[in-house]
Amino acid sequence: MGHQLGDASAPARLAAPDEGIGRDELALATRNHGLPLEALRYDVTPPGLHYVLTHYDIPYVPDDAPWQLTVGGRVRRPLQLDLAELRAYPQVTTRVTLECAGNGRALLTPRPVSQPWLVEAVGTAEWTGVPLRLLLAEADVEAGAVDVVFTGADHGVERGVEQDYQRSLPMDVAIGTEPEVLVAYAMNGAALPPQHGSPLRLVVPGWYGMAHVKWLREVTVTDTPFTGFQQSVAYRLRQESAEAGEPVTRIAPRALLVPPGFPDFMSRARVLRPGPVQLEGRAWSGRAPVTRVEVSTDDGHTWHEAELAPDDGRRWAWRRWRFAWTATPGEHVLSARATDGAGHTQPLDQPWNRGGFVNNLVQRVPVLCLEAGETA
Amino acid sequence: MGHQLGDASAPARLAAPDEGIGRDELALATRNHGLPLEALRYDVTPPGLHYVLTHYDIPYVPDDAPWQLTVGGRVRRPLQLDLAELRAYPQVTTRVTLECAGNGRALLTPRPVSQPWLVEAVGTAEWTGVPLRLLLAEADVEAGAVDVVFTGADHGVERGVEQDYQRSLPMDVAIGTEPEVLVAYAMNGAALPPQHGSPLRLVVPGWYGMAHVKWLREVTVTDTPFTGFQQSVAYRLRQESAEAGEPVTRIAPRALLVPPGFPDFMSRARVLRPGPVQLEGRAWSGRAPVTRVEVSTDDGHTWHEAELAPDDGRRWAWRRWRFAWTATPGEHVLSARATDGAGHTQPLDQPWNRGGFVNNLVQRVPVLCLEAGETA
Repeated sequence: MGHQLGDASAPARLAAPDEGIGRDELALATRNHGLPLEALRYDVTPPGLHYVLTHYDIPYVPDDAPWQLTVGGRVRRPLQLDLAELRAYPQVTTRVTLECAGNGRALLTPRPVSQPWLVEAVGTAEWTGVPLRLLLAEADVEAGAVDVVFTGADHGVERGVEQDYQRSLPMDVAIGTEPEVLVAYAMNGAALPPQHGSPLRLVVPGWYGMAHVKWLREVTVTDTPFTGFQQSVAYRLRQESAEAGEPVTRIAPRALLVPPGFPDFMSRARVLRPGPVQLEGRAWSGRAPVTRVEVSTDDGHTWHEAELAPDDGRRWAWRRWRFAWTATPGEHVLSARATDGAGHTQPLDQPWNRGGFVNNLVQRVPVLCLEAGETA
Repeated sequence: MGHQLGDASAPARLAAPDEGIGRDELALATRNHGLPLEALRYDVTPPGLHYVLTHYDIPYVPDDAPWQLTVGGRVRRPLQLDLAELRAYPQVTTRVTLECAGNGRALLTPRPVSQPWLVEAVGTAEWTGVPLRLLLAEADVEAGAVDVVFTGADHGVERGVEQDYQRSLPMDVAIGTEPEVLVAYAMNGAALPPQHGSPLRLVVPGWYGMAHVKWLREVTVTDTPFTGFQQSVAYRLRQESAEAGEPVTRIAPRALLVPPGFPDFMSRARVLRPGPVQLEGRAWSGRAPVTRVEVSTDDGHTWHEAELAPDDGRRWAWRRWRFAWTATPGEHVLSARATDGAGHTQPLDQPWNRGGFVNNLVQRVPVLCLEAGETA
């Protein structure tokens, strides 16, 4: 009886065949945004161009508002730290490429109804903060601890479950050094912008975005596996909704290219003129360093080695690549394909899962090369 | 024969009845983004939350790249100014609420196929720059000048027309003081972010966003009316495509409210619990100062006066309003309606035009108030 949360919060569903993007998906798309692909040119993404995905509302935290991070649960010495205290710990800055686990979802058939990303849910930033392992060492984790749970200040309901956003990491990942998890208070050398977790967020280099809990308030050590909504219900790879599914963890390899030429406003189709074109882009993998990028200019029929920028030792950031192409009049489809050191590569046919996660289908960029000398 | 621009660039069209948002509209929605409505709480919008609409690509301008602004055409003393020279002119800072002319387009029936905004294409910033009238005075405009044309560095094709983005203002607006047009080099006290026109943009307080030319390179005085694409083809109010149409100019009044309670992730439906709720929001008009905001909590059947924040003299920025409501269990639809000093108010039924411009339909925010004591 009465008015239930479920009245406002429906189960997950798949779009019907030929069902266009709905009002609900559009409302998410106008709030959250991707990296405009031309911004792949920046080594470090300006914060306003970095992709954003927020589950609930962005918490309103005035600049001078106090903020406390608690470290508790199965620890011998619980901590309560304000921002000044966090800044007094040793500081680490890591360049990290962050990608949403749902990137590519809107290209799936059938389409899981959720944030409708095409390919642009990515960005790279310099994150500065305290290594989480130092905070956990200071808090003195008890024997038998298994998970570390991270709680953000963002509150909402999802498939009927009211919640603060929470995710966990296994203890070995939380205290690991490859990657080294950060409690970050700066992005590109400045305070975090609101949409990126101001004033504190977790950064888990190499992992998809759902692990990088924003507006971080609590770190809780548990002696049983965490089974919260975002861990056990969402962010699992499943074919059928009744399956337990595999967890979503590290980022699969992907390459994207800067669309060459200039766009049509409405279709985003690319237009260029005949002659030499320097194709360029970025490639990344959270699983192992990128070792190879191949380019196709004939819709995947033939592939050619791209030139990788020298390894700059920034293991968790994307790597630049280049390929010299000569455009000839006609229609072409450009693609790039990344392979990492563990042998993972990108598929030409996307395997499907019900949540629309961990997609890394090879990008297709249709371009129209005009006849020589043709003007508008 | 051969490959034509038109192959990549289709005419404007209207969506068919019940046609969902298409891939092309989605591609625009993942690039451009609105103000997350909870960010209406900020007096001045953090740059990454301010709405963004870019017609073509965001030009890549490295921080240390030289930039020249030319002021030419029908002037006696053409200018060529770098950023340091522009900063040497008298500096003005104005707080301006900027709204996209297409805000609300995706709510129209039939829906013009273009950037599919719901209601969130707005933001407020402190813009700092040189008054345009000072530059035009220095350049010494010739008698008989009628328009001032502004050219940005963004290049693309739209409905078959290849172009740099260009808009004009009539001379009296360009040299006016109400509003005072700025050539702006700072936003909220910092250099312009790439998506907001780095390093220079025009700011025309009170006018819709299409007038605020980003990546500004050229100011050209003309002695004939400017008839470029963005002036004479796009941004006109028309019922039929063959009409000349009326130009889109100043912002019509609008109020938006901060959606109360917390959201469902997918539907963005709002959930709250019974009791007092302080409703709040912002209201603005480019046509005359906002003089009244009314609130409805019963889907527009009855209206009540909201409390307007004191007039702070910032004529071109939105004004805060508040309304004390007591939520009772059940479903409610909240709305706010702004009226300005010239008697313009917001419609409850949206007049339609083919481009989907100048919409200011009253916002509807459905909320679900749970039974007292109900928990998840």
